[in-house]
Amino acid sequence: MHTEERAFQDSYVPDYSHCYGCGRLNTDGLQIKTYWQGDEAVTRFLPRDCHTAFPGFVYGGLLASLFDCHGVGTAAASAARAQGRAIDGDPPLRFVTASLKVDYLKPTPMGVMLEIRGRATEVKARKVVVEATMTADGLVTAKAQVVAVPMPASFPAAARAP
Amino acid sequence: MHTEERAFQDSYVPDYSHCYGCGRLNTDGLQIKTYWQGDEAVTRFLPRDCHTAFPGFVYGGLLASLFDCHGVGTAAASAARAQGRAIDGDPPLRFVTASLKVDYLKPTPMGVMLEIRGRATEVKARKVVVEATMTADGLVTAKAQVVAVPMPASFPAAARAP
Repeated sequence: MHTEERAFQDSYVPDYSHCYGCGRLNTDGLQIKTYWQGDEAVTRFLPRDCHTAFPGFVYGGLLASLFDCHGVGTAAASAARAQGRAIDGDPPLRFVTASLKVDYLKPTPMGVMLEIRGRATEVKARKVVVEATMTADGLVTAKAQVVAVPMPASFPAAARAP
Repeated sequence: MHTEERAFQDSYVPDYSHCYGCGRLNTDGLQIKTYWQGDEAVTRFLPRDCHTAFPGFVYGGLLASLFDCHGVGTAAASAARAQGRAIDGDPPLRFVTASLKVDYLKPTPMGVMLEIRGRATEVKARKVVVEATMTADGLVTAKAQVVAVPMPASFPAAARAP
């Protein structure tokens, strides 16, 4: 389904790879993965049985988490594309969330693969804006905007963005 | 620390109590609890070791989840207060999230009890707005706005708001 085989999150250097949402080194986490598909960044995720809001419907906090990791991953990948470089180049690119806005349009059904598609609508050195849409079995259930910024200096030095 | 001993979420009837964030019947979930403290609704939560973003800092998706369940719980409790009734009266009150906006102001440190304080800034029959602030060891790290609406008819009939 994707045109580039490596997930954005799997390009994060080890110090960046402990995130509960998307860190490949966090074995208790969600292991969210996002891939380029042309100009769109795509995340697919099948909620676990426990991820319910009410019987039959997905928890909104999980959807927020999916948008969050999709958004900062897409920010890093979009910044890398804009600079003609790799996410894990030197210095490595890593963004954090400055703001997250989710509009829940319809209840999201359990038991189907969820898909988030999005793209960066603004790519600047100090700020990337990502807009994304969630679909469940073809039904658009939520939309989000993530404002991502390079990792601040208060994070571990080894994991800092340039 | 709280003036009323029963958490908002523990007043949800059983059909409403499976939420990954705050359902007392979801044994795999976060079991988020919110209490009145005077006119403020207060949630306290100690993140688990796995809830990291980067080593030493809390995952933003978890913070979004805390604000989400705090917000819809505060919406139900505020609607109940405005109507002079209980959350679990007949019919029971239960809100869902129409939109969630989180502003991440500073990295949130791991290893300390987080506290969300908030209140409803608008209470209408079809919409309650909740504004809330996250502090970690006295440091304000995030703010959020939740727009909550009565549960839509597409949710299970037994769990529907009036």
